[in-house]
Amino acid sequence: MVINRTEIEVRYKETDQMGIVHHSNYLAWFEIGRTKYIEQLLNTTYAEMERKGILLPVTDAYLSYKKPAKYGDIVYIETKLKQYKGIRLVFDYTVTSKSGEVLATGYTSHGFVDKALKPIRLRNVNETWHHELMKAVKG
Amino acid sequence: MVINRTEIEVRYKETDQMGIVHHSNYLAWFEIGRTKYIEQLLNTTYAEMERKGILLPVTDAYLSYKKPAKYGDIVYIETKLKQYKGIRLVFDYTVTSKSGEVLATGYTSHGFVDKALKPIRLRNVNETWHHELMKAVKG
Amino acid sequence: MVINRTEIEVRYKETDQMGIVHHSNYLAWFEIGRTKYIEQLLNTTYAEMERKGILLPVTDAYLSYKKPAKYGDIVYIETKLKQYKGIRLVFDYTVTSKSGEVLATGYTSHGFVDKALKPIRLRNVNETWHHELMKAVKG
Amino acid sequence: MVINRTEIEVRYKETDQMGIVHHSNYLAWFEIGRTKYIEQLLNTTYAEMERKGILLPVTDAYLSYKKPAKYGDIVYIETKLKQYKGIRLVFDYTVTSKSGEVLATGYTSHGFVDKALKPIRLRNVNETWHHELMKAVKG
Repeated sequence: MVINRTEIEVRYKETDQMGIVHHSNYLAWFEIGRTKYIEQLLNTTYAEMERKGILLPVTDAYLSYKKPAKYGDIVYIETKLKQYKGIRLVFDYTVTSKSGEVLATGYTSHGFVDKALKPIRLRNVNETWHHELMKAVKG
Repeated sequence: MVINRTEIEVRYKETDQMGIVHHSNYLAWFEIGRTKYIEQLLNTTYAEMERKGILLPVTDAYLSYKKPAKYGDIVYIETKLKQYKGIRLVFDYTVTSKSGEVLATGYTSHGFVDKALKPIRLRNVNETWHHELMKAVKG
Repeated sequence: MVINRTEIEVRYKETDQMGIVHHSNYLAWFEIGRTKYIEQLLNTTYAEMERKGILLPVTDAYLSYKKPAKYGDIVYIETKLKQYKGIRLVFDYTVTSKSGEVLATGYTSHGFVDKALKPIRLRNVNETWHHELMKAVKG
Repeated sequence: MVINRTEIEVRYKETDQMGIVHHSNYLAWFEIGRTKYIEQLLNTTYAEMERKGILLPVTDAYLSYKKPAKYGDIVYIETKLKQYKGIRLVFDYTVTSKSGEVLATGYTSHGFVDKALKPIRLRNVNETWHHELMKAVKG
């Protein structure tokens, strides 16, 4: 199974007055995780994918916060592809601390769209990527 | 049933290169919605609640994106309290456009903690607020 | 002299672990101020301006922080046009508290560009707006 | 002369609908640059400094935007200490692209304060750090 593990150092800007990382930042971290996953799996970048007119907006997201991340912490985003049959993509995420503790988990669902945000079938625009994703979700 | 309806004007800073509001901003909007709900229900502010040592971090969040919000749009956040029995609070949110279309829905779960982020029972520190929340969830 | 005064309520998300509004948010507040100024002066929205292919990126910015804004505070952004002769626009900002204290001041410089980010002369694409800006800076 | 050079990969979240990095993010990048500079020079972290009750809020900031950074770009933040005589600290920043083009420059001014945000003299609370900063600004 393909798993991407990306390191992130918590930024001061990401904290709030509770003294911990504001919960909305985990969605930005998940985004970094899945773009790195795509880079690793498809041998392209998400930036390149968008230039080709293939966009991947979020349709659903779920987050579970276990332990707060703090400023200066090193955290790891582990991303894997949980579901893909041709239309809907679901990514699973686990955020862990340096010592291996789980800080947060979650998933995001996505559909491929073109630049006008109209749904497209990836198979019709890039069969290679479609097959790589199909393989990854089975593996 | 108590429902808070708060108006938000989409900021340029909230857009991304897809030309729509970045999905992470809805968590900040939900936050505005529930702090306004608390203000309306408990006749206090969330800022004042925190000064009294009662904090309400997010433990879970779910978001479903129906239609994108765009820069300059006026959107409405409708917030209601879905669950509360003394420990866990669940808020429900609906984001609608000016014309009444649903742009997004979601919920967030919370537990009360003190400044050291240790769980507390609201009943033990503020019985009035506890009762108001109990009433609101039944109503 | 045209002055726009826009009210903003500080968001929880805008705080950092120092317990105050993170300094980067003032640039987003200035942005709200100048788009409201444009709306007031030109009887259009900045969103509409962009749809017409007239964009106004920031080329320089200066900020001076006098007193911190805090979560829940109501602040006012006062914006005026300081300079415009046909090319470069400079806006001046003052952020004040409810009691009238100055929290921050600053300015931003801008040049008009088209969607490909190429410089344009406003006079050549919209003479009315050009004249309104010329009048505002003199007034 | 001590110069810190820190690499940043542009995040999708940092873009706006102009298709470029929103100008407010450079303040967060400068912040990363100066905390890395401090780490390199003082052999401590900014997080540790704050735990010791020494905070470094921004009092002034200036930014000049030369060329836009885009999603997926690798950029470098070069930070050096420009001024320090015991009270006021000024850091200088240059943001460059992978090919060495200057994307932005700027500076931030700071004063040391304690947790209550009251001004302090660094020399009185940590003489070693004071001397290291004095040396760095001369070097």
